[in-house]
Amino acid sequence: MSLVRVHNFSVSLDGFGAGEGQTLEAPFGHADSRLMQWAFGTRTFREMGLPGPTPGSTGVDDAFARQWGPGIGAEIMGRNKFGPQRGAWEDEEWQGWWGDEPVFRTPVVVLTHHPRPTLEMAGGTTFHFVDADPVDALAQARALAGDGDIRIGGGVDTVRQFLAADLIDHLHIVLVPIVLGRGERLWDGLEGLEERFDIAATPSPSGVVHLVFTRRSAR
Amino acid sequence: MSLVRVHNFSVSLDGFGAGEGQTLEAPFGHADSRLMQWAFGTRTFREMGLPGPTPGSTGVDDAFARQWGPGIGAEIMGRNKFGPQRGAWEDEEWQGWWGDEPVFRTPVVVLTHHPRPTLEMAGGTTFHFVDADPVDALAQARALAGDGDIRIGGGVDTVRQFLAADLIDHLHIVLVPIVLGRGERLWDGLEGLEERFDIAATPSPSGVVHLVFTRRSAR
Repeated sequence: MSLVRVHNFSVSLDGFGAGEGQTLEAPFGHADSRLMQWAFGTRTFREMGLPGPTPGSTGVDDAFARQWGPGIGAEIMGRNKFGPQRGAWEDEEWQGWWGDEPVFRTPVVVLTHHPRPTLEMAGGTTFHFVDADPVDALAQARALAGDGDIRIGGGVDTVRQFLAADLIDHLHIVLVPIVLGRGERLWDGLEGLEERFDIAATPSPSGVVHLVFTRRSAR
Repeated sequence: MSLVRVHNFSVSLDGFGAGEGQTLEAPFGHADSRLMQWAFGTRTFREMGLPGPTPGSTGVDDAFARQWGPGIGAEIMGRNKFGPQRGAWEDEEWQGWWGDEPVFRTPVVVLTHHPRPTLEMAGGTTFHFVDADPVDALAQARALAGDGDIRIGGGVDTVRQFLAADLIDHLHIVLVPIVLGRGERLWDGLEGLEERFDIAATPSPSGVVHLVFTRRSAR
């Protein structure tokens, strides 16, 4: 069976995966870019078209960052990653943060209680809006993914729900040595999570620590 | 001026420095020994007389662990580290967890709202019971320490208070990759702490990550 993977997911020392007060201008709230600073300098993120120095670094951070793509057949993301609107879709013009040709190039299942028509973008990305729990959403994503793995793309609540349901095989956490103080906590409700995983830590010269959780046993 | 240092202070991924339900039998509450497991195998902790394999490891964990002693002239600890009693001292027979000859071998300032007579132990340890805020406690500890540094020995609340008061120069945190779920949080109220420190991360084969926070500028 294909794997379910999380990549490039940053958390602060105090366990926050996003700050407080997320808006269109500040998708990470008061955390600003601090949680993702390690990534912005990498070749992988440069290739996604984000602003920054070209061609980007090829060290430890990039070695982890670029694992996000290969082997992935579909992504599942929470509605808050797709965009800042809440509740019913008042504006179906919104097509995500990623421009006309999003970086995913696979089907993307967007979890929302407010379905809307499937959105086909240039370059192979198709957004499917689905009202489903993690198990059902995963089944739908697998049906779209062919033989590929499924990436759980965030945000915090989505990753936490899939961890709580024990659906994650590979979890790449980037521990950023900052104390955010407030925001969305990743680890809440996950007491004893480590019992299900082998965990390896790799520090980077950028100051972050890459933690890779590998699920111990097949389901 | 002498430095104020914290050593061998473990926290979980979700930021807890102790579990829930601390008692005489379980000083770390439901965390049991999981937060200190990395330390118990080291030569340093063997030399403190704790049970375990002799002579103990001399790798990364020990290299960090044994820095707790050299240069220290006095320790400050919270009353809950000294013992499990709360409120007024019903039992002055209690002389701490460390037997007749405690490992400290320096003056130790025990913070408590319930002072009691100074306790002289064999081997150079003297417990002074003091009702003071962090600034005053530090002044008293420095008066006892000669030219030596001051170690803030814990528990969680004591370390957090000294960090909040910006009194710590050297902070050695051991990040243990477990999710405790409940207990005492170290980082609460310390938003932006990283701005005051340079931070270096070193992973250990035991699975923990040693984080050393060095205060950036002189006070």
